[in-house]
Amino acid sequence: MALWDRIWVNARLATMRPDPAYGAVEDGAVAVADGRIAFAGPSEALPDRPEALARDVFDADGCWITPGLIDCHTHIVHGGNRAVEFEMRLNGASYEEIAAAGGGIVSTVRATRAAGEMDLFRAAERRLRPFLAEGVTHVEIKSGYGLDLETERRQLRVARQLAEHLPVDVSTSYLGAHALPAEFAGDADGYIDHVCSTVLPAIAGEGLADAVDGFCERIAFSTGQIARVFETAQALGLPVKLHAEQLSNQHGAAMAAGFGALSADHLEYLDEDGARAMAAAGTVAVLLPGAYYFLRETRLPPVEDLRWHGVRIAIASDCNPGSAPVGSLLLMLNMASTLFGLTPEEALAGVTREAARALGLGDSHGVLEPGRVADMAFWAIEHPAELAYRIAANPCRRVVKAGRIVLERETA
Amino acid sequence: MALWDRIWVNARLATMRPDPAYGAVEDGAVAVADGRIAFAGPSEALPDRPEALARDVFDADGCWITPGLIDCHTHIVHGGNRAVEFEMRLNGASYEEIAAAGGGIVSTVRATRAAGEMDLFRAAERRLRPFLAEGVTHVEIKSGYGLDLETERRQLRVARQLAEHLPVDVSTSYLGAHALPAEFAGDADGYIDHVCSTVLPAIAGEGLADAVDGFCERIAFSTGQIARVFETAQALGLPVKLHAEQLSNQHGAAMAAGFGALSADHLEYLDEDGARAMAAAGTVAVLLPGAYYFLRETRLPPVEDLRWHGVRIAIASDCNPGSAPVGSLLLMLNMASTLFGLTPEEALAGVTREAARALGLGDSHGVLEPGRVADMAFWAIEHPAELAYRIAANPCRRVVKAGRIVLERETA
Ligand SMILES: [Zn+2]
Ligand SMILES: [Zn+2]
Repeated sequence: MALWDRIWVNARLATMRPDPAYGAVEDGAVAVADGRIAFAGPSEALPDRPEALARDVFDADGCWITPGLIDCHTHIVHGGNRAVEFEMRLNGASYEEIAAAGGGIVSTVRATRAAGEMDLFRAAERRLRPFLAEGVTHVEIKSGYGLDLETERRQLRVARQLAEHLPVDVSTSYLGAHALPAEFAGDADGYIDHVCSTVLPAIAGEGLADAVDGFCERIAFSTGQIARVFETAQALGLPVKLHAEQLSNQHGAAMAAGFGALSADHLEYLDEDGARAMAAAGTVAVLLPGAYYFLRETRLPPVEDLRWHGVRIAIASDCNPGSAPVGSLLLMLNMASTLFGLTPEEALAGVTREAARALGLGDSHGVLEPGRVADMAFWAIEHPAELAYRIAANPCRRVVKAGRIVLERETA
Repeated sequence: MALWDRIWVNARLATMRPDPAYGAVEDGAVAVADGRIAFAGPSEALPDRPEALARDVFDADGCWITPGLIDCHTHIVHGGNRAVEFEMRLNGASYEEIAAAGGGIVSTVRATRAAGEMDLFRAAERRLRPFLAEGVTHVEIKSGYGLDLETERRQLRVARQLAEHLPVDVSTSYLGAHALPAEFAGDADGYIDHVCSTVLPAIAGEGLADAVDGFCERIAFSTGQIARVFETAQALGLPVKLHAEQLSNQHGAAMAAGFGALSADHLEYLDEDGARAMAAAGTVAVLLPGAYYFLRETRLPPVEDLRWHGVRIAIASDCNPGSAPVGSLLLMLNMASTLFGLTPEEALAGVTREAARALGLGDSHGVLEPGRVADMAFWAIEHPAELAYRIAANPCRRVVKAGRIVLERETA
């Protein structure tokens, strides 16, 4: 009887253990059993011949193997797109003119409310598939374009269905405090009351949310309002996270850290007190270079401060129709390096080890080591730095989800 | 007997005629005969029922059809990559340290000289295939990483072979005046002599180059040196083009326009006299947002001047290992809009109508109209602005080359 289900030999591993760089193993093997990693290390450390150890022996053909990629911040389930608004802007329309023409986030809320569950599913599936083809095995998906119970619930149900029908795991976040819906115009506190008393308890009761998110900004909600949402979340046993310090410093990250938030995301305007609070709470900094790029921002997130204080850094796509219509997580590695100065190793850790941590999966995902879930991506590259170096190229050869091959690509 | 070989009905056309926007036809059809477009217009203008007109009738399913995309500036044939140099830079290495470690363009010259023809072909094919999957039907490929007759010839032969083996046409450019090879260190004039007396005549004699390119910059060659290359090219009957005004204003674009250059490329430092000279000569401005992005440049090309003087604007990938390891032409549309402020229509024209012009194919390619080569891309989108709006997403459904379907993608 074989010990293991499957083994890949002749592989190079970027285990993403902290040492050496990339946790690299130049002549390595990975074995899986019952959907978990059973072995990940140098070939010479195998206890026997591969054929004696595993039922199936595969040749990895010298490919680099990394943990499956994790996109820990997306808004991939929504109706419509904002291409025409993008075009208006480039033809010189002002924000007022775009708003008068029905543009902005309200247009996405309108399209999402109008979309049926199947339409939402199909559109999200179309957006998600290219991510899976680049080795993404886990994705976080937020609600927040419904802003009423029925639509928020529908977004989250579609997120759950994506995980049922595609080879990907999904972590869901309820983002009711994303924007003020028209029916509460001028009454943000009233909307927060409604979220805390009605929507969030219902969503939580139905098991639709793995976490609760908010948008703390002058154009969205105050720290006080978000804190009320977070108190409700904690009472319901749900972890929290926050869109913080994207356009101004609201001290939202420190507030979130006070709630032991999983992550604070964006962070261009984070100050050193905020970084210190995040480090103390173990709150991950999720950087979103796609939104920075698309919005033509010039204020960089304080990467040096984050490093200095030991804040963990993740990278995500922020896939959304308004500020980051992004179709590639790999491109975000390049943007994190090119625009934010992250090293290629930090960028790769940001979509594996640290992204897992940002979703509360720091013990079970994101690193190739025994006992963890066997989500893996195989790459036709010579060096792991290539994953950040290339701009919108996809050298993914094979994807393994929970120990099983779910995608083979000939042409990488 | 049917008039035409094939017709697609139920299509939306972005013909890229100048009027209306995108040359759009909302309820249209395209027919092909003998590899050329036989009809491209509103369904109601068809002279008979589609079945009576064409041997095969296809339903385009509401897809938008554009001319096949044209990437009019690439260095896609080369050995090696520069990922490790990219990583060194992000780990704080200086240019001197990178040069001392063997980095920079000399490392690509070394790798290209060392690569056999088959290796070069395979590496280029791997880089090129993703472009073809996004509707690219024509690509320009430069030499310039050999800098000796044998290797330059090998690069150009591989470029020709790509067109033989893949469903793409290739325009080749001899770029001997790209950098000074080590064997001519300190003797740029001597190298230019060698190019003009030996390499260029041999390349031209073998029919390997469709055009002659150069790099006019303080770190490369002077306008005087480039002018000598261009004189030789003209004597040999070859059109010219130039890498100009990328890092400083050398007045290279005006010099090239004086030779009736097809295009001047990069142009961040172009002045108004240069724009005026280009307009007068019909020299196309090829903007390369990928290199601007990757090098973190801050000086924008003078788009307003180009528009004002009526200079045609094309967009290209510049795919190369040192300053633009780009794997997507569609992403360049987004970067042209996001970074340079081009409208989505200008960006799309830049990879169709104007890119054709930049390759001397302005009468035969780049627009959907009768008599032109039937190179077309089909898109699962609601509006042509989506092609520039999305960041690294590929909604291409089908590619037609010279009238024949060469690619079908289910998942777009
Ligand atoms: Zn977001
Ligand atoms: Zn170039």
